[in-house]
Amino acid sequence: MSGSRIYMDWNATAPLLAEAREAFLSALDQVGNPSSVHGEGRATRALVESARRDVAALCGAQAASVTFTSGATEAANMVLTPDFRMGRTPLRIAKLYASAIEHPAIREGGRFARENVCEVPVTAAGVVDCAVLETLLASHDRQAGLPMVAVMLANNESGIVQPIAEVAAIVRAHGGLLVVDAVQAAGRLPLSIEALGADFLIVSSHKIGGPKGAGALIARGEVMMPSALIRGGGQEKGHRSGTENAPALAGFGAAARVAAGNIDGRMAAVAALRDRLEAEMQSSAPDVVIHGRDIARIGNTTFFTLPGLKAETGQIAFDLEGVALSAGSACSSGKVGQSHVLTAMGYDPRQGALRISIGEATTEAEIERCGAVFAKVAARRRSTGQAA
Amino acid sequence: MSGSRIYMDWNATAPLLAEAREAFLSALDQVGNPSSVHGEGRATRALVESARRDVAALCGAQAASVTFTSGATEAANMVLTPDFRMGRTPLRIAKLYASAIEHPAIREGGRFARENVCEVPVTAAGVVDCAVLETLLASHDRQAGLPMVAVMLANNESGIVQPIAEVAAIVRAHGGLLVVDAVQAAGRLPLSIEALGADFLIVSSHKIGGPKGAGALIARGEVMMPSALIRGGGQEKGHRSGTENAPALAGFGAAARVAAGNIDGRMAAVAALRDRLEAEMQSSAPDVVIHGRDIARIGNTTFFTLPGLKAETGQIAFDLEGVALSAGSACSSGKVGQSHVLTAMGYDPRQGALRISIGEATTEAEIERCGAVFAKVAARRRSTGQAA
Repeated sequence: MSGSRIYMDWNATAPLLAEAREAFLSALDQVGNPSSVHGEGRATRALVESARRDVAALCGAQAASVTFTSGATEAANMVLTPDFRMGRTPLRIAKLYASAIEHPAIREGGRFARENVCEVPVTAAGVVDCAVLETLLASHDRQAGLPMVAVMLANNESGIVQPIAEVAAIVRAHGGLLVVDAVQAAGRLPLSIEALGADFLIVSSHKIGGPKGAGALIARGEVMMPSALIRGGGQEKGHRSGTENAPALAGFGAAARVAAGNIDGRMAAVAALRDRLEAEMQSSAPDVVIHGRDIARIGNTTFFTLPGLKAETGQIAFDLEGVALSAGSACSSGKVGQSHVLTAMGYDPRQGALRISIGEATTEAEIERCGAVFAKVAARRRSTGQAA
Repeated sequence: MSGSRIYMDWNATAPLLAEAREAFLSALDQVGNPSSVHGEGRATRALVESARRDVAALCGAQAASVTFTSGATEAANMVLTPDFRMGRTPLRIAKLYASAIEHPAIREGGRFARENVCEVPVTAAGVVDCAVLETLLASHDRQAGLPMVAVMLANNESGIVQPIAEVAAIVRAHGGLLVVDAVQAAGRLPLSIEALGADFLIVSSHKIGGPKGAGALIARGEVMMPSALIRGGGQEKGHRSGTENAPALAGFGAAARVAAGNIDGRMAAVAALRDRLEAEMQSSAPDVVIHGRDIARIGNTTFFTLPGLKAETGQIAFDLEGVALSAGSACSSGKVGQSHVLTAMGYDPRQGALRISIGEATTEAEIERCGAVFAKVAARRRSTGQAA
């Protein structure tokens, strides 16, 4: 292996963009609490509000509809609650219908009681089963409250794009609320809360090249909002208390500006690298299974199974060769769990799958080296497989 | 006024320490999700765990008892809940008894229903009334669940130190849980969860010179913990999900190391400046009321009322003269509300009070200039008062 490492785990966390770093650092030197009335406070407030406009623009939303949080997981926990308000009138949500491939931040159900979280299966292609969703919502008891549906725009493990417009039409027909986790889609697919037909979007700063510690819940309007998860000083119009993390938000705003620009061009270049890597993988190991290869995926992700190679083993093998990739998603303190995404798609999760996720900074040379490491790991697997 | 500004609002947010800035910036260049298994992830994980040891040391606690959050407000909302676990056994908390001078993050009661939050009054001296607390806990109905008591160690507006040891003895006698908001005390008073007799401490990074976006809930042990507020990937042993903000935590850890060192020496120097300012204030406006001057306060805070000068007016006057101070605490989007701390102490809150809070970087020259601005504002007030 060469001395330098290759980072191919952008879906876990993306490297900090130069633009985000600059905005972040210059905000770091701005002392002042954004809620303070004095000049220092007002200057910090201006940074926060400018970031709010940038994040709104990324999502095709109004700035007033953006609530900043400490990250996407907090935003998910904020919106997944039975207790909403429509203006001043309480609004009750009875059940959460979440797709089987949602991120754990959604699957855990936030403030819904476990018995009020219902799983919506996906097809073998890894796409939410709209027919089942339709049936589930048709039998939803509206007397108890409205239904809430959560379907992500692009899956974090497979990269597979979900049919949100179709889902939105079903949800609308049944008078429900639609929450769309756009964490992996942001900056990779055009994003418009209106065009998607979603009631809420969730985005994360560090997944689009901004600093960690910032995320947002974006609402379609300002009228219908969940009860606050974090209460206190009344920041964010009472929706999220706590001193705003102005430097992180300034960096988030800068990353959002980059993410909103030239998506097609940027992603075509990234997808070309990804496709080249997949072609090399296919050539050195014709039995490799690339999940979702034949349907719409975000351009930076490859989710694959090498028959005979356990995901845990594969991850360590790549790591030793200097390539950072992941076995499924990155959470739960470094434990390599079985992929619920694979299970939902009907695969045997015991073998697992590996995820390579790249980005704009990935180079051709890295793709080449990653392809070579893949060939090495795949070959070693064959010999081990024969020996076993 | 001279061209440069004087920042005297450290209790709202403290300037970033050089040590914290350095740790923060070097962590910023460390790509990797701390939950990822690869080398990059493990390196990021090491930063987080090192910060955990530093924050634990600041609080005289075990590292395993530190749960990182996005800030103190989140930590407060996490611990203020009826739903606890003692190991695997559910533990019910029936009521929250919070002092009348707690920060809004505590006063809002977290996940307790409004009717289960009970206010504990303070004496005219601004100190929690232990006799009333004793009476309240004596009549607490333990059948419904345990009592939880929340009393801060040092008040954010007045700086007045609360008698936590006495409070802890009362809480212990009644089998309750004690939550101590140590946000303003950290780095200014010696901090030991054991010595205080608290079950939980809350600390904030940006109030001790660390970056914004980090805080912690520190438990006495590991056995009794609140149900998670933010669920998802299972980070922080399942107590707080969401990608850890490694750079902010690294900065928090560095700030905690500074805050834990030479507290007496550092605070003696700060208190000498504060006392000198107060002497000048007294000399130029003998009618100034300095709240809590005769009892134990943290050394950096002056909370005062200038008769005839409304706090809002005073704050703007100081701001125009280049001095950033605050009217009470900084929250709720720049609104200047009436001080609940003054009200609790039996003062007429309509006139309000102003808070000057300084720190280690405050210079003698700044104290001198602040004294001069004070004299000017006080003199103007007299003439306006006579004209009205």
